[in-house]
Amino acid sequence: MAFFEVIKKDKKTRAKAGVINTLHGPLETPMIMIVGTKATVKGITPAQLKEINVPCVLCNTYHLYLNPGQDLIAQAGGLHGFMKYSGPMFTDSGGFQIFSMGHGTISDEIKGKGNRNRQKTLLKLNEKGAIFKSYLDGSLYELTPEKSIQIQHKLGADMIAVLDECTPFHVTKRYTERSMHMTHRWLDRCIIEHKRLKSKQALYGIVQGGIYPDLRKISCEYIANSGTPGICIGGSLGKDKAQMDETVKMCHDIIGDTKPVHLLGIGGDLIDLMRGVENGMDTFDCVAPTRNARHGSLFHTKAPNKKINITRSEYRNDMSPIDEDCDCYVCRNFSKAYINYLLRAKEMLGVELCSYHNIYYIINFMRKIRQAILEDRLEEFKISFFGEELT
Amino acid sequence: MAFFEVIKKDKKTRAKAGVINTLHGPLETPMIMIVGTKATVKGITPAQLKEINVPCVLCNTYHLYLNPGQDLIAQAGGLHGFMKYSGPMFTDSGGFQIFSMGHGTISDEIKGKGNRNRQKTLLKLNEKGAIFKSYLDGSLYELTPEKSIQIQHKLGADMIAVLDECTPFHVTKRYTERSMHMTHRWLDRCIIEHKRLKSKQALYGIVQGGIYPDLRKISCEYIANSGTPGICIGGSLGKDKAQMDETVKMCHDIIGDTKPVHLLGIGGDLIDLMRGVENGMDTFDCVAPTRNARHGSLFHTKAPNKKINITRSEYRNDMSPIDEDCDCYVCRNFSKAYINYLLRAKEMLGVELCSYHNIYYIINFMRKIRQAILEDRLEEFKISFFGEELT
Repeated sequence: MAFFEVIKKDKKTRAKAGVINTLHGPLETPMIMIVGTKATVKGITPAQLKEINVPCVLCNTYHLYLNPGQDLIAQAGGLHGFMKYSGPMFTDSGGFQIFSMGHGTISDEIKGKGNRNRQKTLLKLNEKGAIFKSYLDGSLYELTPEKSIQIQHKLGADMIAVLDECTPFHVTKRYTERSMHMTHRWLDRCIIEHKRLKSKQALYGIVQGGIYPDLRKISCEYIANSGTPGICIGGSLGKDKAQMDETVKMCHDIIGDTKPVHLLGIGGDLIDLMRGVENGMDTFDCVAPTRNARHGSLFHTKAPNKKINITRSEYRNDMSPIDEDCDCYVCRNFSKAYINYLLRAKEMLGVELCSYHNIYYIINFMRKIRQAILEDRLEEFKISFFGEELT
Repeated sequence: MAFFEVIKKDKKTRAKAGVINTLHGPLETPMIMIVGTKATVKGITPAQLKEINVPCVLCNTYHLYLNPGQDLIAQAGGLHGFMKYSGPMFTDSGGFQIFSMGHGTISDEIKGKGNRNRQKTLLKLNEKGAIFKSYLDGSLYELTPEKSIQIQHKLGADMIAVLDECTPFHVTKRYTERSMHMTHRWLDRCIIEHKRLKSKQALYGIVQGGIYPDLRKISCEYIANSGTPGICIGGSLGKDKAQMDETVKMCHDIIGDTKPVHLLGIGGDLIDLMRGVENGMDTFDCVAPTRNARHGSLFHTKAPNKKINITRSEYRNDMSPIDEDCDCYVCRNFSKAYINYLLRAKEMLGVELCSYHNIYYIINFMRKIRQAILEDRLEEFKISFFGEELT
């Protein structure tokens, strides 16, 4: 069975519906992974993940390496056994967080929002790998390409990622280029280590090259030729949506449709997911849907930007559900007034219910996109969902 | 249909199995109510409460009066509609918290552990009622017997309680006696207000009288003759278990078996519940099972005091469930190692899973007691569960 099968291609865009065949079952694409950073989707039980039909959970190698450690997780039967989640899983390589913690906040950084005054924990970065301090207790850790694969092998996710240097936005083209070549050499070392371990996990190479089309082209070709079954697009994609669109589209056109392409860290806005799909991306992950939920920012079909903030006083007496058009457990049962009250009273249940809704909503949004592709009505869906302006 | 029916009496003790017929269905006794202070059992969804078969939830009038207010809850269809919980519910009168917040921490206070330096919010207490400051924003609130019944009428629980002064442990007998008589007069006012509102809620009178047998006797007789369908035993029951046992037993013998008797705030230790049942108590409530859970103190059948603390380092690598003898969702799925990790990492899911287990455990402990009474083997159950020493 092929790792990736394309079932249907959209006629007007690069969008496609497909299936990724993982060790824990098939994953229908396009799809967004739900982030479970520390081996838990915050506040949501595995039984609830199943109820929501979450297709895939993404955990962070960096955090799990520091605590509780890959050996303990391996002893529990890997992440699936430790968390008691039986669906497909993905782990990142740890690179993003090392550089995020190292430089300040990289999510701002790669979006070109400049640096913040965070404690810098990245002590050394060279060809061999990275040495950094644990944010938990200050102890020293090393992450090399080999080590990343070894850790992820023990974590046991279905899909794993190579170690890369996630280059920030503000660096020079020269830095970006040298870094990209190092990431390519790290990829080769990851592939060797992956073979040595006889791992059955699907390895994803990562495209770097920042905002420079010529570098992205080189990187896409390098990764596509490396033989990894999947490909991630990482690093800074530019400072606005237009630049991001161009970069993503170009990457897709070089990579082609034979391997699933994962757009790392994108998915906070539904329109970004829509555009990503149109530009040929198959899978996504983003911490925003669950992080936003914890602050009361909830998906809502009829809101102008598809989100409302449930903590606003206008919802204090509102007895209607979060979203009349949503049929999740939360929207079928609870009022805005109750959820507004729970969040303002800092009650855990509020965070749980908000997370539940946002996860359900975004999972089903991706399902609707897939269905529209299958039924040759993607453009129609896009216009009816977002309206003329946004599209 | 009678409000309370005794189905079976134990031959050796005052224990009995019964049924309380509430507006939201029958409640099998003996039973413990699960505390949902602020209109939510912390971290547990109503769907999970149903899955656990929680028989009854107790909410606190005091907290709900301050936030979000009884009018909003009434607008949502009462607590049942607001929380979307469809089982029997109980609200206390608000008295306990007023005096708790007023004097420091009353739960320590009524157990004779002395006072703590908390901000005192009780401004005035007299025959009319109490005036106090909100702990949320400092604004002034009044609670009178009539007001308590009005608020609870809007909250809409099946069982409600009269306003009482919960006398602390350290006060004189003279103070306790005067306070008790005022509580009796407040009871009469509550009954009048309850009738005026044509409320169908089952009103519970509250026995006071502190640690003084003669006062407890007077109070029991007064409450039993008042005609309320249920009776609570409140206030300080003494500074040790022997004194508590004596007080409770005596109260039972005066009140008799025709009305369900609720022992307010007791249930942190399983042996206290066992003794309460043996001394004739029908229902209980205690915040400890859920509060303890949040700090990792979990019920465990084979532990000497029936609890383990899951955050201890000895559980870090323990792949067995919390309690091999428990068949709850948590024990059927997760390891001690995972829960230890979640709590240490301060992950919400840890608190949820721990709460789930403790609620399930204590609910089922009460069911086992009931079954043992029905099958004439209460003493046998007690010895097999607690061992010879504790009994």
